Amino acid sequence: MADDAYADRRRRLQARLRTIDADAVVCAPSRNLQYLTGFNTEPSERHFLLVVPASGPPTALVPALEETAVREATNVAAVHTWRDSDDPRAAIRSLLTSLGVRDGRLLVDDTMWAQFTQDLRAVAPDATWGLASEALRTLRITKDESELDALRAAAATADATVEDLRARDNVIGTTEAALAAWIRDRLAAHGGSGVAFEPIVAAGENGAKPHHSHGDRVIHAGDPVICDFGTRVDGYPSDTTRTFVAGGDPPAAYEQIHETVRDAQAAGIDAIEPGVTTGAVDGAARSVIDASGYGDAFVHRTGHGVGLEVHEPPYVVADGECTLEPGMVCSVEPGIYLEGRFGCRIEDLVRVTDDGAKRLNTTDRGWEW
Amino acid sequence: MADDAYADRRRRLQARLRTIDADAVVCAPSRNLQYLTGFNTEPSERHFLLVVPASGPPTALVPALEETAVREATNVAAVHTWRDSDDPRAAIRSLLTSLGVRDGRLLVDDTMWAQFTQDLRAVAPDATWGLASEALRTLRITKDESELDALRAAAATADATVEDLRARDNVIGTTEAALAAWIRDRLAAHGGSGVAFEPIVAAGENGAKPHHSHGDRVIHAGDPVICDFGTRVDGYPSDTTRTFVAGGDPPAAYEQIHETVRDAQAAGIDAIEPGVTTGAVDGAARSVIDASGYGDAFVHRTGHGVGLEVHEPPYVVADGECTLEPGMVCSVEPGIYLEGRFGCRIEDLVRVTDDGAKRLNTTDRGWEW
Repeated sequence: MADDAYADRRRRLQARLRTIDADAVVCAPSRNLQYLTGFNTEPSERHFLLVVPASGPPTALVPALEETAVREATNVAAVHTWRDSDDPRAAIRSLLTSLGVRDGRLLVDDTMWAQFTQDLRAVAPDATWGLASEALRTLRITKDESELDALRAAAATADATVEDLRARDNVIGTTEAALAAWIRDRLAAHGGSGVAFEPIVAAGENGAKPHHSHGDRVIHAGDPVICDFGTRVDGYPSDTTRTFVAGGDPPAAYEQIHETVRDAQAAGIDAIEPGVTTGAVDGAARSVIDASGYGDAFVHRTGHGVGLEVHEPPYVVADGECTLEPGMVCSVEPGIYLEGRFGCRIEDLVRVTDDGAKRLNTTDRGWEW
Repeated sequence: MADDAYADRRRRLQARLRTIDADAVVCAPSRNLQYLTGFNTEPSERHFLLVVPASGPPTALVPALEETAVREATNVAAVHTWRDSDDPRAAIRSLLTSLGVRDGRLLVDDTMWAQFTQDLRAVAPDATWGLASEALRTLRITKDESELDALRAAAATADATVEDLRARDNVIGTTEAALAAWIRDRLAAHGGSGVAFEPIVAAGENGAKPHHSHGDRVIHAGDPVICDFGTRVDGYPSDTTRTFVAGGDPPAAYEQIHETVRDAQAAGIDAIEPGVTTGAVDGAARSVIDASGYGDAFVHRTGHGVGLEVHEPPYVVADGECTLEPGMVCSVEPGIYLEGRFGCRIEDLVRVTDDGAKRLNTTDRGWEW
């Protein structure tokens, strides 16, 4: 993405801060920082901040040994540094003072660690506090063209991997972990960068644990196997789920359950259009499962927004009040989980357009393997 | 590790809370949580807490879809849950009330996200706040035998990979990224689980950026190449650095600089014994580099503690006041960085014993490749 686009995002954030009467956003290493600067790094024990004041120059305060990397990767003009032999709290105090925001309303990064927020509170005892998402949520929740391009490219790598998976015919006898490693390799082979999250491969009874990752469970004939995975392209993730049945001979009740989940997903996607609430989308999917008698076995929300973060607003949840707008991207992923037996989940990403939902994932949703 | 050992750690934490007059620790998904329960998961947008009160049952509050995983992986007896359709804040308020700590002194996990600490402050407006490390630091900073076993095993995988690297003879023409991928594979081949951090392979001028990761820079004959990497065994990391010269014909001044860094590391390690401060260890290493005239080019601390986290107390930093005790484990990793030319860093882990430092890494520290 062009450097100018990052500067433009920072200007839009500053305008937004003035609108909501906040004095500054204070970012830590996070997806917010990446959104505003292009700089992608993990938080560490060293203080690393970007202060974006409502007026005045956005200013970074970084460990001296990160300075070159920050200057090379971003167009943030004001970069202050501190060394391991300095007290970073003194540097933060003087930065907030020089920007005139030390007694203002400060919005800290939602994922900033407590050790840093407690230091901020100590050096700015007269400030009041909120979360950066108060200001950034409205910017980040709708995706611009460069973000949509990246999300489409990431979705394509996931789709190509689903096709590989469906074509693979020697799955019986493999462990979940081995299949997860194979999925990881296929995502990379199709151009993805790493994994967006640890792949889930949950066979048989493990499928009833919605957040089971993978283990040494061997896949047997007749096991429904939930495969949920994604990678990143240009920083943006994919996230798709298919449930296959190994050997093609499903257990009792499975076929009907799979059909119900597929119908619930279709109902959720059909409900999506600008002006509709996330609660209505969740309700559309959930009512299909409720009507089948498995309502209690659909133990999670229908979906989540996807952007720089795999899980971000809008959350597609019961009674969700967020109103959908063109440019939003979210997952639709109903599931049914029968403890001790199996689970079934089907997930695709869609973007909201003036004409309703457009799918980012296009592969077959059947269980045949 | 035996389940009893985790219960014992929780009891020791409770005793410590009573000693320092705090009412509870509130953990998020973190290494603190892993230390206290064995449960290893990443933080997400869903509220996930473990409250360890000074007296009374340690109690977890987790998303319903994590309950099975928590019950299977831990021996925490009290596990409360909330569903996506519930307000987790109400559940937190009632949990803190039932444990009698809602208006007490609460120590929140050092890496807890601001979105959760702000919710805690909202539901417990009369509480006072500190960091979990106030109570956990003294427990975690010295390692027990099971932790030392894991750290030794992890160090052995890193050492075996250093040997592989030194034996590799077709490095010229390879990119940093390709060598990093090869290192990752070797660590896994020697029994490591993933990487403890993204490997650093920094050739030539990239070596002068202490936190350069790796890129498409091709390694040429005569390039000093910093290789800094680690993996995990039983949850505990390795972290070692060697600087090699490709083709064996170093640039001007390199040989003397490498010798200086090696001497500085030896001086730091020699200074380690119970009762010595981290500042004295840093000073011992730093004075060797100062005497060589490159003091300004040693731009970071001498080392850091290593435990469940790759970077944790004790930090071996100028003026550091932590007094070393048997059972502590830290890195000793001086370096010299010449902008636009190259860098040199040598890093090993050592544990503090009654007889001084014992090395966890034993491979040759020379530059010959």
